[in-house]
Amino acid sequence: MDLGDRVSVEKDGSVYQGVLMPSRRKDHVVIKLDNGYNIGLSVPSSRITLVEKGHELKLPPPPPLKSRPGMPTVSILSTGGTIASKVDYRTGAVTSQFSAGEIISAIPELEEIANYRARVIYQILSENMRAEYWMELARAVAAEIASGAEGVIITHGTDTMMYTAAALSFMLRTPVPVVVVGSQRSSDRPSSDSAMNAICAATVAISDIAEVCVVMHGDTSDDYCSIHRGTRVRKMHTSRRDAFQSVNCSPIGRVDYLTRKIRPLIPYRQRGQVELELMDRLEPNCALVKYTPGSSPDVLDYYVDRGYKGLVIEGTGLGHVASNWIPSIKRATEEGLPVVVTSQCLRGRICDRVYDTGRDMLAAGAIEGEDMLPEVALVKLMWVLGNRPEEVQTLMRTPLAGEISFSTPITV
Amino acid sequence: MDLGDRVSVEKDGSVYQGVLMPSRRKDHVVIKLDNGYNIGLSVPSSRITLVEKGHELKLPPPPPLKSRPGMPTVSILSTGGTIASKVDYRTGAVTSQFSAGEIISAIPELEEIANYRARVIYQILSENMRAEYWMELARAVAAEIASGAEGVIITHGTDTMMYTAAALSFMLRTPVPVVVVGSQRSSDRPSSDSAMNAICAATVAISDIAEVCVVMHGDTSDDYCSIHRGTRVRKMHTSRRDAFQSVNCSPIGRVDYLTRKIRPLIPYRQRGQVELELMDRLEPNCALVKYTPGSSPDVLDYYVDRGYKGLVIEGTGLGHVASNWIPSIKRATEEGLPVVVTSQCLRGRICDRVYDTGRDMLAAGAIEGEDMLPEVALVKLMWVLGNRPEEVQTLMRTPLAGEISFSTPITV
Repeated sequence: MDLGDRVSVEKDGSVYQGVLMPSRRKDHVVIKLDNGYNIGLSVPSSRITLVEKGHELKLPPPPPLKSRPGMPTVSILSTGGTIASKVDYRTGAVTSQFSAGEIISAIPELEEIANYRARVIYQILSENMRAEYWMELARAVAAEIASGAEGVIITHGTDTMMYTAAALSFMLRTPVPVVVVGSQRSSDRPSSDSAMNAICAATVAISDIAEVCVVMHGDTSDDYCSIHRGTRVRKMHTSRRDAFQSVNCSPIGRVDYLTRKIRPLIPYRQRGQVELELMDRLEPNCALVKYTPGSSPDVLDYYVDRGYKGLVIEGTGLGHVASNWIPSIKRATEEGLPVVVTSQCLRGRICDRVYDTGRDMLAAGAIEGEDMLPEVALVKLMWVLGNRPEEVQTLMRTPLAGEISFSTPITV
Repeated sequence: MDLGDRVSVEKDGSVYQGVLMPSRRKDHVVIKLDNGYNIGLSVPSSRITLVEKGHELKLPPPPPLKSRPGMPTVSILSTGGTIASKVDYRTGAVTSQFSAGEIISAIPELEEIANYRARVIYQILSENMRAEYWMELARAVAAEIASGAEGVIITHGTDTMMYTAAALSFMLRTPVPVVVVGSQRSSDRPSSDSAMNAICAATVAISDIAEVCVVMHGDTSDDYCSIHRGTRVRKMHTSRRDAFQSVNCSPIGRVDYLTRKIRPLIPYRQRGQVELELMDRLEPNCALVKYTPGSSPDVLDYYVDRGYKGLVIEGTGLGHVASNWIPSIKRATEEGLPVVVTSQCLRGRICDRVYDTGRDMLAAGAIEGEDMLPEVALVKLMWVLGNRPEEVQTLMRTPLAGEISFSTPITV
């Protein structure tokens, strides 16, 4: 049997069918199941039977990008991730290999929506994103807008998409849509969400929603994509296509996949409402510390001693830590590090005025993170310290890019 | 005007009405709004008008506990928290002052369900919980069961309830229900969930569900409480009464508040199915590290250098960290610290076999945390290292108390 052949493997009474993949271990056979995932099975070769000979996957070369008069111009910036990836049949793994041009040629419907300019910014897995790359990306987006793009699409791995979207939200005041999009299943899988997400993203990119937003599958069916505000979105499932959810805020709207109509759900910034502004400085030396019961406050001192510039605590419930954390919070704030308190509940609002612990935290100088997601509070702290550090106390509690809402009642 | 009087305060065109509370700041007036929360307003005294004179809150002394023949015996162990608290009208803050006996007398319906024994174990705010207290609590629960309790109720603050429930789940094999319950609103507030949660908890305590579970409001109305498995529950909202949700698993069932009927939703361990077993050792020197983009892996080395015994990483997506974290993971595992990988998505299953990063993490010795919640993985690691450290590689991937499910398909 050859790699690529369809085989059937019997182990412990179960039968697995799939495509034979290369294996790193001699005693293992690896097959790609029909759901797209690979499994390794430790079986003797006598338990493997051929179902069907495989055939080479042949793709036509991408056609050159067309330009049709009268259509809006959208820039696609690609950074890597599953939407820009395909399975590598040598290793069985998913790799980032598509250029933005290849994405367009793979999804012909995109050409019905706009003319495209395409640029590869990075080809990295999104877990390797970092503040320096966010700054570079913000500059690239601003350059595209400055040179006439009527909308920008950023293809991004889903794992850290929410952090990038939040960072761009603070760094850019944009007069046109800036849409971050990805996919949870690579484009060679039958259940791939690449095409639908990309088409909906392009639809938003030519709309009047001039915000940094994330456009991803809205439910498990293929009906619509949700348009999430960049500072309110979170990946809430490891693998589902509808993993992305708006937290403490309704999505901005929905894109109907069939009709390509946008249904707004809340007010948003309109196209052309602001002038393009780029505030691209971030202070990367900020850390997020998640509190767990009994954990030692020494980790706060560790970050202070290492010269960090700001801390976000992901506390319990309304925003609490154990009483023995108070002195370390006090020390951090006295040494000039802002300490922002958020909640590991994720949903709901911080309130450190109800219980003793919270009031002690505030007395020690902690800043309430309101109803901000912990991850967004971290990115915002990097931005505030990079741009307006003297106003950190006020700004961390003031909505700058929709990341805080004062209308979410604490008692709901 | 006196403290306790109902007043009306005008500020910036808005009018706030509530009960006048003591204020720590001279230039602030603090009033308790009707929703139970306090606000501080910086206004001159001319803007405050009396609405109604206040009157002392007088509560009758609690009657002695009755014992009626033929009813099951349930032990109530109180540890503090909102269900065992009331607003302190001296400071306007919520404090933990009720004993378990007072809870019963405050909720007379409880006496229709069982006879009670009541013991105060702690009177602490739940953010001050820690491994040592969990061990003591497990011993107290086991002692109650050994001395004839047919069910045990533990009243607990909601902030760290999920950690305590998980810890008890691993430390106890119980032949009777062990029900952890709390409330999100103190019992002197109109919207309090104390009574309903306590009544539903007592209903579960005399049922045939012999598991450690959390019983809390199931939705925003007062229809039912959900019965959550102790290793699968998480507080998902800072303040809502239905903040508790089962993650990656259906709740065990529901308790209808009106009829007190239990509707099971999934299989559970039946009353009397196992003998009581107490495995009360935990290794507290374990830490949870939440990965954020660009964060330094040095924090892993910090924990290794400080003599920690095990680490849980809350990674992105399927369970990832940046490539530059791999050497520190390798160092930790080589020094004998198990490193368990979980996902900050919370929902879904870890899978470190699809992308390069994940495979590199596994090659560095990381253990996949399957579909465990990060917080539960931390508590479980403490238990495994305290009891069967040599089996940590296997046990962390094996369901011991319902914390892992192999039937959750990764592709759903």
